[in-house]
Amino acid sequence: MNIITNGICAAKGFKGAGIHCGIRKNRSKKDLALIVSEKKASAACVYTTNLVKGAPIYVTKKNVADGYAQAIICNSGNANTCNANGQEIAKKMCELVAKELKISSEDIIVASTGVIGEPLNIKPIEDNINVLVDSLGYDSSSVAHAIMTTDLVEKEIAVSFEISGVTCRLGGVAKGSGMINPNMATMLVFLTTDVNIETELLQKALLDATNDTFNMVSVDGDTSTNDMVSILANGMADNKKIGICDSDYKTFFNALVYVMTHLSKAIAKDGEGATKLLECNVVNAPTIEIARIIAKKVISSSLVKTAMFGSDANWGRILCAIGYSGVDVEIGLIEVKFESSKGEILVCQNGAGVHFDEAIAKTILQEDYIKINISLNQGDKKATAWGCDLTYDYVKINGDYRS
Amino acid sequence: MNIITNGICAAKGFKGAGIHCGIRKNRSKKDLALIVSEKKASAACVYTTNLVKGAPIYVTKKNVADGYAQAIICNSGNANTCNANGQEIAKKMCELVAKELKISSEDIIVASTGVIGEPLNIKPIEDNINVLVDSLGYDSSSVAHAIMTTDLVEKEIAVSFEISGVTCRLGGVAKGSGMINPNMATMLVFLTTDVNIETELLQKALLDATNDTFNMVSVDGDTSTNDMVSILANGMADNKKIGICDSDYKTFFNALVYVMTHLSKAIAKDGEGATKLLECNVVNAPTIEIARIIAKKVISSSLVKTAMFGSDANWGRILCAIGYSGVDVEIGLIEVKFESSKGEILVCQNGAGVHFDEAIAKTILQEDYIKINISLNQGDKKATAWGCDLTYDYVKINGDYRS
Repeated sequence: MNIITNGICAAKGFKGAGIHCGIRKNRSKKDLALIVSEKKASAACVYTTNLVKGAPIYVTKKNVADGYAQAIICNSGNANTCNANGQEIAKKMCELVAKELKISSEDIIVASTGVIGEPLNIKPIEDNINVLVDSLGYDSSSVAHAIMTTDLVEKEIAVSFEISGVTCRLGGVAKGSGMINPNMATMLVFLTTDVNIETELLQKALLDATNDTFNMVSVDGDTSTNDMVSILANGMADNKKIGICDSDYKTFFNALVYVMTHLSKAIAKDGEGATKLLECNVVNAPTIEIARIIAKKVISSSLVKTAMFGSDANWGRILCAIGYSGVDVEIGLIEVKFESSKGEILVCQNGAGVHFDEAIAKTILQEDYIKINISLNQGDKKATAWGCDLTYDYVKINGDYRS
Repeated sequence: MNIITNGICAAKGFKGAGIHCGIRKNRSKKDLALIVSEKKASAACVYTTNLVKGAPIYVTKKNVADGYAQAIICNSGNANTCNANGQEIAKKMCELVAKELKISSEDIIVASTGVIGEPLNIKPIEDNINVLVDSLGYDSSSVAHAIMTTDLVEKEIAVSFEISGVTCRLGGVAKGSGMINPNMATMLVFLTTDVNIETELLQKALLDATNDTFNMVSVDGDTSTNDMVSILANGMADNKKIGICDSDYKTFFNALVYVMTHLSKAIAKDGEGATKLLECNVVNAPTIEIARIIAKKVISSSLVKTAMFGSDANWGRILCAIGYSGVDVEIGLIEVKFESSKGEILVCQNGAGVHFDEAIAKTILQEDYIKINISLNQGDKKATAWGCDLTYDYVKINGDYRS
């Protein structure tokens, strides 16, 4: 497997575009993105589990019910959620794209991200849909940019890999930096691949990979109403169609996990106000479920997050978070280490503190990628979660988001 | 019922003291508190549900198993949690008090609050126990001060009320400003009363009142390892002993709820870094449980908390929090209002935004006591939760707590 350029435009037959259409006032921020496949593609999605769902989620669900789609339209600046006419507007977005691309409006995935509860004006989209379609090209970065809200960096990646001698490609873009919680599909992620695969297997691969990647990311414990991960697979690599869970499926699945892990870490690192990427590795757990719950609780704790911001080796807060995670483990066996590029330091053994050099701990924790390594010493299962520190800037960004 | 002075020294037969013994380096901060009843009292406690429990919790549980206690000893500056010799130290604290007071060491409630995982040095307590006992008097404020950690204000209250013509008193002190979460008994609270009541009923009253008060407070979603609410009832008011759930019990219970609500709000208002007290009132809910879950989820949302800090009427985040709370409610019926001393404003009706005057909303939200009033319009049950805004100072306080 190789990392290649061009994000969602890397796979054969995919083009993308991102423009400023006027949903946002700031003209330098693109606010409308389009991804199109030359051929109708197998499509799979994982959606938010929030009871309050954005209107685009309902429309997308209906449109991909048959397992196929050909284009993805997404605006930023307005979530089109909790509005009386939300679904009507989301459908209208699909119709505008369909008309311009001369495809069926039911082959379109629609997504919106931004403020909740303010009616989405269709006018800027209507007026600029032809510009958007005319802009289609191989500039994945403009798509990554157009879907950003409070994100600071564009998040995209692509890889190539061989399936039985045939080169295939998979790429993705992601947006997400606040209202992200591990209870479900988190944030907006659009993936494109030219792999030829049965829709049912595509859906299974997406769901399984999501459980180990996007569902293990937490920025602030708030689960968005509009989260969605979508993948289009147009088969244009011309590999022998993947129809069972064989080694070809495994190759594709590994590439998918790689791409989704990369985007998960990119989202955590770009968490609102974050200065550090946190990774919590739980090993030697009795079950995967227990490992996952603990990793997520630790990474979500405001007290752990602020301690990491302050480069403070306050491991007691980690034990505290394990204690209230609700899982039944033997605390007296737990070991905790902090790790970064500056080294690793043991701070807790057998559930109690050990003497350690505070100066060395500080040096380790001052780095911007910190691993919290927890060994439960009561099994052989493991899990990893990603998050970020909690900083002044998180408060600043969210204190007055709408203005 | 009247509000009276003297906190935990208001009830007949109770004295208190708070001194600086040297657990903390800062000599101006008291770090050791003692509460003593003239007579052995009925005792009841509610403890943290965190699997990681402070050593004092285990010792206290054992000591009050018979339903009686006579004194409460509490230090701040060190939680005596996750230490190899924790229980030994906690027992030693009881023995020192017992010897000095000439009572049984098994009639003592012991508590610690502060940093987790650093061995608690018994020496400063040993050296100063006689000073502490000599200081016993009617200065409840010194007790309230000595149990504080990052708290900015002392939290105490007392009330008097009549039980069948006899005047009784009930008072309390509380500490708590971080690591507070509604899953359980939260923070340290010591209550004293001269009411004459059966131990079983005292325990029932404390538990029931906790569910509507301390269990409805959230500052940061982290549930402490050392939380405990304790009450001593020495019967010295000489009322006819309360032995059944009659009107006398009801009078006592109402006083207890009043005192505990006052302390709950004081804790929320003094949340780490807080500038505003938030109250979430959920009404017209199908069940009390649903009302409680929603009120707690809304008050705990980082995004709601930061919006309130910024006086931003971002009600979409409230609907979002209701949506991920896990309860099954009809979103399309929900109504949301913001209220403060400056008035009340409707921002969401039938689950969708309504037009409102942003300037008026800003004026309302700039106050320091904000009510988020949610009507589910699908039942007649209700619940209230308290919390605070999330601010720069929360991050500052917790970024380097240990130094």
